[in-house]
Amino acid sequence: MTEMNKTWVLRNRPVGEIKEGDLELVETPFEPLEEGQVRAKMIYLSLDPTNRIWMSDMDAYLPPVGIGDPMRGSGLAVVVDSRSEHLKPGDIVNTGLGAWTLYPVLQGDTLTPLPKLPGVPLTAFMGPLGATGMTAYFGLMDIGKPKAGETVVVSAAAGAVGSMVGQIAKIQGCRVVGIAGSEDKCRWLTEVAGFDAAINYKTEDVGAALDEHCPNGIDINFENVGGQIMDEVIARLNDFSRMPLCGLISTYNATGPVPGPANFSNFLMRRTLVKGFIVIDYFPRFPEGIQQMAGWLMEGKLKFETDVVKGFENAPASLSRLFEGKNLGKLVVECSQPPA
Amino acid sequence: MTEMNKTWVLRNRPVGEIKEGDLELVETPFEPLEEGQVRAKMIYLSLDPTNRIWMSDMDAYLPPVGIGDPMRGSGLAVVVDSRSEHLKPGDIVNTGLGAWTLYPVLQGDTLTPLPKLPGVPLTAFMGPLGATGMTAYFGLMDIGKPKAGETVVVSAAAGAVGSMVGQIAKIQGCRVVGIAGSEDKCRWLTEVAGFDAAINYKTEDVGAALDEHCPNGIDINFENVGGQIMDEVIARLNDFSRMPLCGLISTYNATGPVPGPANFSNFLMRRTLVKGFIVIDYFPRFPEGIQQMAGWLMEGKLKFETDVVKGFENAPASLSRLFEGKNLGKLVVECSQPPA
Repeated sequence: MTEMNKTWVLRNRPVGEIKEGDLELVETPFEPLEEGQVRAKMIYLSLDPTNRIWMSDMDAYLPPVGIGDPMRGSGLAVVVDSRSEHLKPGDIVNTGLGAWTLYPVLQGDTLTPLPKLPGVPLTAFMGPLGATGMTAYFGLMDIGKPKAGETVVVSAAAGAVGSMVGQIAKIQGCRVVGIAGSEDKCRWLTEVAGFDAAINYKTEDVGAALDEHCPNGIDINFENVGGQIMDEVIARLNDFSRMPLCGLISTYNATGPVPGPANFSNFLMRRTLVKGFIVIDYFPRFPEGIQQMAGWLMEGKLKFETDVVKGFENAPASLSRLFEGKNLGKLVVECSQPPA
Repeated sequence: MTEMNKTWVLRNRPVGEIKEGDLELVETPFEPLEEGQVRAKMIYLSLDPTNRIWMSDMDAYLPPVGIGDPMRGSGLAVVVDSRSEHLKPGDIVNTGLGAWTLYPVLQGDTLTPLPKLPGVPLTAFMGPLGATGMTAYFGLMDIGKPKAGETVVVSAAAGAVGSMVGQIAKIQGCRVVGIAGSEDKCRWLTEVAGFDAAINYKTEDVGAALDEHCPNGIDINFENVGGQIMDEVIARLNDFSRMPLCGLISTYNATGPVPGPANFSNFLMRRTLVKGFIVIDYFPRFPEGIQQMAGWLMEGKLKFETDVVKGFENAPASLSRLFEGKNLGKLVVECSQPPA
């Protein structure tokens, strides 16, 4: 019997939230490997807010996924067959920017097996040592430029990026206030991740809570969300504040025009630096970021959670967890059994 | 007969445009000078969009002018009486951040007489070599960081700041497109100031005109205006674009909430750097900026115009020229006869 691969293919551009039928799970027979290629089996498929951007035809930082094309994505996969001298079966690799496919075919010479770090689980390579960790590290350090004693606010604080931003800022000696959407998340932020305060935007008056927890104003706003919460933060920025603009997840499912920040003029009055960035721009500097984050991780200074959904077939439906704020930490789909 | 000074005092915070009675011209007798002080007579009072900000109680970069206090401002003045060893009668000085007063009393040791530059008229010290010139120079060079071959768009292009921004960008080898509000201004920009193109926002479709004149997109948007024109520019920003945020003049007379930029997400997608700035932040670097601008000026590379209104008593009413777009170049009030 021919072995079969499974791939999620984009059939329609979603309007608002993703619906059944927007993506289709397609089976295709294994193609023979060419010299230099490896076949891997996906262990953890990464689900990220940006997946939703790629499905839409908005003017974004990469072309949209074509209708009828495999959904774009990345993950950790284990090599199951190799025609490359660089990789052998059993090696675990990060697929890089590939597809939502169960058996990705990869070029062996572009990949190196993940290192084994003492006490560090494989899921760390989806979180602190993966793209979301690099997003947090470079966005905060390169754009935010935190200084000890400054106040840092981060939205979507219990997510994969936000949770790292806050902990890196703590390591830099900052006061850190996270904004998240549940009591459980807020408790995790203050009791596990060491944030100075956490604000539940679903139950609290965000402006009043920011006033309480940021008595010296806000020096850095690491923005993941957009919308009214962002407006409340912008209103409290200090002179010469910085705002790494990482994401605007509250807008990605929008079906109509999205209002800009109500207090845009504050960027002028406060001389704020706002800088949009996409983690792929930092790809050449990933080794630096991974080395730094791995060091902090092994010192026990970075706590992280992984929100694991089982079953490759559940990938599209699970993406909504990000938009409904159900995930604590990095959302992944476990597509096959991770190694012990 | 006691000599009298005249000062414009703020009586009401204007609602929308400034109205008669918002400021009052008050006469006061000359106070005797203290040791170290000089009395000067204002020659050119500077009128700037920021005057309107200072009259309002919006959250701005300086406290608002108090009701009953002299209106804040600056200008060029000639020393008429001196008890300072640093200045003698006849010396011309920049008053720094002072007041709308005909006979300012200044500390001699904080001022140096303006140098005489061959072929450079006194009005240059209100324009290219004054605060507006420094605004253009540092905003463009320090935040915009223009590179030869890039496309620079500047709004309020025929104003004191915009006209310098475009010419400095040309000196840097950029393609420069200005946005202004009359045919006369547009003609001046292309025929005198050497802009590659000028768009009359009152008669042209700004988006279509930007498409035509910026075939390679926009690398730098030097923002002076805000509102819908800004939205059209933001929509055409290139990857890794920069946006020195210098002013939002279209909003200063607003009496209600001002919408933020409709396409704020483009700052994320294009990885744009947006940086608010106020020229006073660059005060320590003014000597560097003045030296560079004076060099270009003496080489004939910077054309500038001065929009002169005569009579100190006309200062408040003349401010509206900025908001109605009547001025070409730097708006000043000639308060007394300049030296030949």
